[in-house]
Amino acid sequence: MRYETKITARYAETDQMGIIHHSVYAVWYEAARTEFIKISGITYSQLEAKGIMLPLTELGCKYLLPVHYEDEVTIETRITRISFAKVTFGYRVLLNGNVMNEGFTSHGFVDSKTFKPLNIKKVFPEFYEKLKSIRED
Amino acid sequence: MRYETKITARYAETDQMGIIHHSVYAVWYEAARTEFIKISGITYSQLEAKGIMLPLTELGCKYLLPVHYEDEVTIETRITRISFAKVTFGYRVLLNGNVMNEGFTSHGFVDSKTFKPLNIKKVFPEFYEKLKSIRED
Amino acid sequence: MRYETKITARYAETDQMGIIHHSVYAVWYEAARTEFIKISGITYSQLEAKGIMLPLTELGCKYLLPVHYEDEVTIETRITRISFAKVTFGYRVLLNGNVMNEGFTSHGFVDSKTFKPLNIKKVFPEFYEKLKSIRED
Amino acid sequence: MRYETKITARYAETDQMGIIHHSVYAVWYEAARTEFIKISGITYSQLEAKGIMLPLTELGCKYLLPVHYEDEVTIETRITRISFAKVTFGYRVLLNGNVMNEGFTSHGFVDSKTFKPLNIKKVFPEFYEKLKSIRED
Repeated sequence: MRYETKITARYAETDQMGIIHHSVYAVWYEAARTEFIKISGITYSQLEAKGIMLPLTELGCKYLLPVHYEDEVTIETRITRISFAKVTFGYRVLLNGNVMNEGFTSHGFVDSKTFKPLNIKKVFPEFYEKLKSIRED
Repeated sequence: MRYETKITARYAETDQMGIIHHSVYAVWYEAARTEFIKISGITYSQLEAKGIMLPLTELGCKYLLPVHYEDEVTIETRITRISFAKVTFGYRVLLNGNVMNEGFTSHGFVDSKTFKPLNIKKVFPEFYEKLKSIRED
Repeated sequence: MRYETKITARYAETDQMGIIHHSVYAVWYEAARTEFIKISGITYSQLEAKGIMLPLTELGCKYLLPVHYEDEVTIETRITRISFAKVTFGYRVLLNGNVMNEGFTSHGFVDSKTFKPLNIKKVFPEFYEKLKSIRED
Repeated sequence: MRYETKITARYAETDQMGIIHHSVYAVWYEAARTEFIKISGITYSQLEAKGIMLPLTELGCKYLLPVHYEDEVTIETRITRISFAKVTFGYRVLLNGNVMNEGFTSHGFVDSKTFKPLNIKKVFPEFYEKLKSIRED
């Protein structure tokens, strides 16, 4: 399953090159991921309340075309890999039919108090099954 | 007492006007405040570990001259007011003898678990006395 | 006239206090202002293309209640003052009927090449008249 | 050649997990890159003034250990690849002898007006030769 999030580029997100600063895409991915996770029927806030966090283990990002202030981009999010320990999301930033940027983030499932890895299938099986069911290469 | 912190303007902090974005000054004030608080002999991290937080209640900021990428500014910080409930810091951002920006932040002393106001003189008298002793209009 | 913009608080906008960082409100004000200016029939991007910029001269911000990750706030924007040289916007951040934060930004009208003040009534009278007509104390 | 930059983690850079937000590392890489480029005898600001920009084409980042507020990290920067069209920088974020994070950024050399690729060896041969001479796998 692919999920689409609309984001309007903010002025604060531009840099003196006149384009959206490269560090911003990770923030947009996250906003898109937040909406995507809601599809599972649980918000990320609720997940944290349950003592589960998903810190990043890896980020990759390709900058294909520059995005500008006030551009209304679409972030397309999907889950590309899921295991008991880790989940990987893929993203594409689209504008007028063009792919402006694409990337991925990998996340470990960890205990929010100890920051130690946890087995998501054991700790929260419904969430694991839901994510697995919407996975798409 | 006035304390000086050096900061080099980052590229990510610029916007498409080619100047440092106005939201960044609050972040620089905070970096300067972190160093300033250390003078009291306790770091802000230790303060939080003691269950005390200083969330902002008010921010004021005047933009006098634009700051640019790679400019090495000096942030001059001082405490202008201190009570059992609240502390106010004043800031000036200097470059080559010019005041580029000036502002203030007010903070309440609160309990880090309940977010309720606390009396800093009761909870941590040494810290209160130290801040009071370095206050300067 | 008052204009309402919806914003969902991002994870990247939180800090270790577990609340939205105080520097973020200036960014939200700006996103709200961008939408508000569009009402005048011209986007801020078009304004910059015409050689007009509105850098901040002053910012004021009061933090009344903390906003959290995934909160969907409403930013209410209005113009409180307008002259040939300057415009002031007022903002209120609302959540569930509560005012979480309120503030203002003042902006000078300047030439985008020289950064020198310009008389907006002379340079772009329709824009000036439009802003004036929607002003509200 | 490897170059070391010291950075103190800012409060604004934390998130509600209590760690430095993952989008911040790209900003730290950039601050380190700015200092590294200065070694070549030319600042990045001067490079832009000459009509040359280095927008990112790719970013990769591995999060090995969490960094916290007030941590004083060292960013180790080097050039891993250089061609007429592109340069790649490698980074390691170190704290107390541990590698907390590592990554790379690739940049195209482009004309600052047209954003079109340019041949750095033709346009600014001394800069190209300097970067090449300090390259290290």
